[in-house]
Amino acid sequence: MASSTQEGTGTAYRQPVIDVAELRRLLDGRYAEVRDLVRTNLAEHAAVLEEAETLSQGEFRERVKDLLVTMAGTGQTGMGFPQEYGGGGDLGASIAAFETLAYGDLSVLVKVGVQFGLFGGAILMLGSKRHHDAYLAHLITGRLLGCFAMTESGHGSNVQALGTVATYDASTDEFVITTPDETSRKDYIGGAGQHAQVAVVFAQLEVHGEGHGVHAFVVPIRRDGSLLPGVRAEDDGLKMGLNGVDNGRLWFDGVRIPRNNLLNRFADVTDDGRYVSSIDNPDKRFFTMLGTLVQGRVCVGGAGINAAKVALTLAVRYAVRRRQFNATSQDEEELLLDYGLHQRRLFPLLAESYALHFAQEQLALKTHDVFSVRTADDEDETARRELESRAAGTKALGTWHATRTIQECREACGGAGYLAANRFTALKADTDVFTTFEGDNHVLLQLVAKGLLTNYASDFEDLDQLGMVRFVAGMALETVIERTAAHKLFEAIKDVLPGGDDEWDQEAGLLDPNYQLAMLRFREEHTLSGVARRLKRGIDEGLNPGEVFSRAQDHVIAAARAHVERLVLEAFVAKAADLPDGDLKVALNLLCDLHALSTIERDRAWFMEHGRLRASRSKAITREINDLCRRIRPLAVDLVDAYGVPPALLRSPDLLT
Amino acid sequence: MASSTQEGTGTAYRQPVIDVAELRRLLDGRYAEVRDLVRTNLAEHAAVLEEAETLSQGEFRERVKDLLVTMAGTGQTGMGFPQEYGGGGDLGASIAAFETLAYGDLSVLVKVGVQFGLFGGAILMLGSKRHHDAYLAHLITGRLLGCFAMTESGHGSNVQALGTVATYDASTDEFVITTPDETSRKDYIGGAGQHAQVAVVFAQLEVHGEGHGVHAFVVPIRRDGSLLPGVRAEDDGLKMGLNGVDNGRLWFDGVRIPRNNLLNRFADVTDDGRYVSSIDNPDKRFFTMLGTLVQGRVCVGGAGINAAKVALTLAVRYAVRRRQFNATSQDEEELLLDYGLHQRRLFPLLAESYALHFAQEQLALKTHDVFSVRTADDEDETARRELESRAAGTKALGTWHATRTIQECREACGGAGYLAANRFTALKADTDVFTTFEGDNHVLLQLVAKGLLTNYASDFEDLDQLGMVRFVAGMALETVIERTAAHKLFEAIKDVLPGGDDEWDQEAGLLDPNYQLAMLRFREEHTLSGVARRLKRGIDEGLNPGEVFSRAQDHVIAAARAHVERLVLEAFVAKAADLPDGDLKVALNLLCDLHALSTIERDRAWFMEHGRLRASRSKAITREINDLCRRIRPLAVDLVDAYGVPPALLRSPDLLT
Repeated sequence: MASSTQEGTGTAYRQPVIDVAELRRLLDGRYAEVRDLVRTNLAEHAAVLEEAETLSQGEFRERVKDLLVTMAGTGQTGMGFPQEYGGGGDLGASIAAFETLAYGDLSVLVKVGVQFGLFGGAILMLGSKRHHDAYLAHLITGRLLGCFAMTESGHGSNVQALGTVATYDASTDEFVITTPDETSRKDYIGGAGQHAQVAVVFAQLEVHGEGHGVHAFVVPIRRDGSLLPGVRAEDDGLKMGLNGVDNGRLWFDGVRIPRNNLLNRFADVTDDGRYVSSIDNPDKRFFTMLGTLVQGRVCVGGAGINAAKVALTLAVRYAVRRRQFNATSQDEEELLLDYGLHQRRLFPLLAESYALHFAQEQLALKTHDVFSVRTADDEDETARRELESRAAGTKALGTWHATRTIQECREACGGAGYLAANRFTALKADTDVFTTFEGDNHVLLQLVAKGLLTNYASDFEDLDQLGMVRFVAGMALETVIERTAAHKLFEAIKDVLPGGDDEWDQEAGLLDPNYQLAMLRFREEHTLSGVARRLKRGIDEGLNPGEVFSRAQDHVIAAARAHVERLVLEAFVAKAADLPDGDLKVALNLLCDLHALSTIERDRAWFMEHGRLRASRSKAITREINDLCRRIRPLAVDLVDAYGVPPALLRSPDLLT
Repeated sequence: MASSTQEGTGTAYRQPVIDVAELRRLLDGRYAEVRDLVRTNLAEHAAVLEEAETLSQGEFRERVKDLLVTMAGTGQTGMGFPQEYGGGGDLGASIAAFETLAYGDLSVLVKVGVQFGLFGGAILMLGSKRHHDAYLAHLITGRLLGCFAMTESGHGSNVQALGTVATYDASTDEFVITTPDETSRKDYIGGAGQHAQVAVVFAQLEVHGEGHGVHAFVVPIRRDGSLLPGVRAEDDGLKMGLNGVDNGRLWFDGVRIPRNNLLNRFADVTDDGRYVSSIDNPDKRFFTMLGTLVQGRVCVGGAGINAAKVALTLAVRYAVRRRQFNATSQDEEELLLDYGLHQRRLFPLLAESYALHFAQEQLALKTHDVFSVRTADDEDETARRELESRAAGTKALGTWHATRTIQECREACGGAGYLAANRFTALKADTDVFTTFEGDNHVLLQLVAKGLLTNYASDFEDLDQLGMVRFVAGMALETVIERTAAHKLFEAIKDVLPGGDDEWDQEAGLLDPNYQLAMLRFREEHTLSGVARRLKRGIDEGLNPGEVFSRAQDHVIAAARAHVERLVLEAFVAKAADLPDGDLKVALNLLCDLHALSTIERDRAWFMEHGRLRASRSKAITREINDLCRRIRPLAVDLVDAYGVPPALLRSPDLLT
């Protein structure tokens, strides 16, 4: 129905034809080979998807652990470690491999993430050569299994406030690790329930009665499957999903470890029992240490985006097979995908998956670059803070995208989507916690906003919410606005639009990417300076800074989201612009337009409230989106096929055959 | 924090104090006793919530079946059946009992719904005395277990198109039931997998080669646990949730049943083999038969609303216990519920749960009234169609509310929300299919729109989508607009607002319920006439009616949603207005205002696009919502406690203690 009536804007419009292999190469990018290795491994072990349902929890955990070791044997999980220890020496490859794992069973993904990302990453990034020598080779092969004991029951996203204590005992040259109360038990720790032999434990370091803040320690917790003295563990039990991962709780009762077990890249206790650190400011030290672990967030965001692709593949393919109700013909029922509403439900999400994919690609390459030039003393602080902010923002948007997309796709597959064999069961249950782990999404967006409001000023990274409010309130408004990069970007772009300073938003064509970007940049700049204004006004009115923050909090989140959405659109526009002329470019431009206009449409109330969208133009955007959906309709199957989800991983006999 | 600063609108404002018992009585309404009976039963068997996790699927199914029989023994499941067969003779009580069951394990709820609502309801509503005598007493006690074989793999929401055939064989005076192809296998049928001895099968009736459309037949399928000859069954296997219900597929290969097994309230085959019916028009007959089963939708909507209350209870109670980050004080971390964003996330959903509760109460009482005056020949057709429409719309909004609310509450409980012991696992997985079963929500909203566009004209209930488009296109626009009840309602209300015809929306106070209702009524009327206009224009331009429908489909859905949202707000406003002056009224008015303004805010782009909201007023609504959230903050715990979810059903050691 859709393809038969291509009226609408341009008369010269010709429906593009997508070369799926070419598009897949574009999506796979620099690490196509790594991605294919993972695809092959996943397809070979596709049975695990069914075993997640048929095995007992205990059996399934063993299966997942064994698969981790098997995958490690192919090299795919060690890409990010130095070659001298058996790794691949390529962080970017490691991120690509992890993202691709999200096409398969997500317990395997998370188990791999815990072992090689969290545990291995902490040893690599926070430790020094002696730790690398002692652990890396063993952990890369999976002979040594570890866990990452950061989160506590009462201190989820507020890591700086955690309660576990590591006291230096000079008499024995050891640290004594203790859990002081129930809110400080380590919780939800993947691997702690059963398999981990070693934990990297985050604890408040105390030396001679003086506190130095959170540091990381290597603590052996099990030998031959039995807990070591002073360590108590409890299984977290059944979870909503990810039941192949043995999450658990840990308590430490005066557990003694040698002084050398402090991961001492940024701080140490010397032979003569003095605390030393290359970073004087304790808050800065804390954030620097945490900053080295940013790949975790990069990886989770990418995994969310790829899990959503599996759902989109299923929903789109089902919708070109399943018919329901007579619509255009009395003889044959209509394909679901030929309904305007069905297109409206799926295609903006499809477009968003592409936009997020390209934003994630940029982020992963940037992460690779920042960490591949590892010169601890000579780092570009601002670049690191920007990377962390970008990782936080992309993780939040990518994982919310996953939750929303998987839900919409399940509903779009009706009752069949509810059967476990059709994959949505696991996709939904397993990804649900992505919005929470590696940082609660709302907390992460606050982090983004803080960076924007303080322009990543390295002196101010220690600011908590109260501090940030006071800091902003103390600045001149102009300074805040001047500091935001968005301002300059917007100035640059609106020069190329017709209509001058005041009318650029009314004269430009809706499909002009400069217009689309200018809209998102205007929103970002305006929201951000609005937040600054509100914070300032609140303080001026004598309100408690905490209350000022609480009242402006939705505004803070909106500013951060506006920022990240702008970055995501920029990534998509840049990718499409880079392509040589041809059908692929035409197709991606359709998708990019759909993404841009959907983003504007979703927030069109804001644009109208702020004088940047007239009612008639707002309605025109809605019409344009419907037109774009009709044009994308004939391309939809190719667009999801290009994700390259191996057929063996789709299962879904009721949806696809 | 919130309660300490009650600035804002009126100066005479005094924080109300809620009497939880009084509010609970208000919520429980006419059927408080029935609800308490179910609460007591649920609490007594609360262990089933844990057994859902610890038992094998097979064991859990048996447990759920046994519980069904146990509950039946208390009378709570038979409230809707005639007293002469051992029932309670009160349909309203039966709905109230079912709704309350949603506080507990939802496999039990659905198993009960299948047996007493779908199977028992079909026997009661579609059968005649001989069927009642044969089956009711047995099914009310649970001695006879049945299933409801309507849905087919290839014909989900399009029941009229189903493929199973029932051919009358005059030579033996039997019907022969046959599954002609794989798309016509019965699928997702609760009870078909294992326990059902009898099925009510919906099939295309053919008599002497002539088709008479879909009719329902009683077909024995198992004896002593073994399938009867010609019946094939397959288990649907593991599902996302509801795994205590044995869903399955059924195929019939020439299964013979006596002529008397046709449920013959509306149509019959006579002794001499003639087809007769009191309703001549086959489409009207079909919709009349289906219409008698409307309680199913009423019940599912109510169950969704109550399941969401469990999630809200957990999230609100967790948020007054859990602290995170320093905000107002350096010494103590802030309670989650004192964060503005947290209030923003939870309170509009809390307000919506109240609004939907009262709308559901109205719907249930109306259902009771319509069906308690059972005079088949003298029914008020329009009242029935309106009831069906209202049931469809409330089911759609109530179940989407459940999906959204449970997800938001899970995220608001962080990692702890992910542990199965904390109930969100089951709540999410079990309710997920509510948006699909008893009619896909989008299909239901189309049904609502069709009723509005045709003013429930009884001659036109046979219209499919194509027919509806043609019908509307053939009417004068004025007629469509005139026909919609919304128009008159809106005219009536805006007279009481200041500002006259043009300015009523700018002069009235935001907290004036007349203003709020006028806004929703204006939107409903405008959207609806807009749809009519679009359909008409499409046909005038010579487009295929199916394509016209497809293109306007999002608009059709929006019109239906606008209608249902108006009804929901009206129910809440009416309930609050009826209360005597006092604290409870003040509290409910806060909540009602929050619900009304949240509804307007969510669609404020539309109101701006249509000239009914200026930018400044739109921003004022957002500010007002934030104010209302702060005022509701001190009431929040009482508001969820008044739901009366028995503590034994909350579980959640990590959230509540």
